[in-house]
Amino acid sequence: MSCPLCSTDGGLVVARTPQFRVVRVLDEPAHPAFYRLIWNDHVAEFSDLSVTDRHACMDAVTEIERALRSLLAPTKVNLASLGNVVPHLHWHVIARFDGDAQFPAPIWAAARREAVPVLARPLEAVDAAIAHSLASATRTRD
Amino acid sequence: MSCPLCSTDGGLVVARTPQFRVVRVLDEPAHPAFYRLIWNDHVAEFSDLSVTDRHACMDAVTEIERALRSLLAPTKVNLASLGNVVPHLHWHVIARFDGDAQFPAPIWAAARREAVPVLARPLEAVDAAIAHSLASATRTRD
Repeated sequence: MSCPLCSTDGGLVVARTPQFRVVRVLDEPAHPAFYRLIWNDHVAEFSDLSVTDRHACMDAVTEIERALRSLLAPTKVNLASLGNVVPHLHWHVIARFDGDAQFPAPIWAAARREAVPVLARPLEAVDAAIAHSLASATRTRD
Repeated sequence: MSCPLCSTDGGLVVARTPQFRVVRVLDEPAHPAFYRLIWNDHVAEFSDLSVTDRHACMDAVTEIERALRSLLAPTKVNLASLGNVVPHLHWHVIARFDGDAQFPAPIWAAARREAVPVLARPLEAVDAAIAHSLASATRTRD
């Protein structure tokens, strides 16, 4: 029983804390502004976390959402923790744009068109903003 | 511009607080154990909430998840806040079962089979557990 989120980072790591890492997802070309918060410990469900960890997790998800909103002005941000295939707690944080491949359907629905959003800023700027905000949040909690 | 989550409850209400209500979704027959937490105020994104409200929101999502796990023992719980069609903050909390119409794909993917999960307990028992846990949580915070 090997878990891919225990044995690999699961994407391009943009931030790490003792509890979780945030990665940029590289294998969803139709949705380039797609990040995941991956809990480091192998737990399946959000409710397996302590209340302190749950709040820290969602505070970080919020920081990712804010970086996306601030730099890319998406039509909507989508948040999801599914884990049916890989039951190791992770949160999808996805910038959605009017006219992207499935909009307004979820990204897991059939594509309605071939389209890749043109982003207002390079993804490296988003990566840096996420890393900075999570480092700041961690320092504030010290 | 009328918002259906401002003008209607959005489902069968099982709990109400000053900040949000929890409804059982009645129009997804393939996924009967499907609840939504709907924020009462019309805000679009999770990060539009204050930190206190975000924590209260996810504490309640956690209570819904726990009721589903405790009473129905689903294969997995899926959590999602999308809102592309109705940009009024709401959280989907869905009990997923091995062999349900899309499992292990998200419920928004094409159906792989015709199947409706047979639940271990009646949904009214889940409704009551959610109502009880949220009432208890509200009292504890007083």
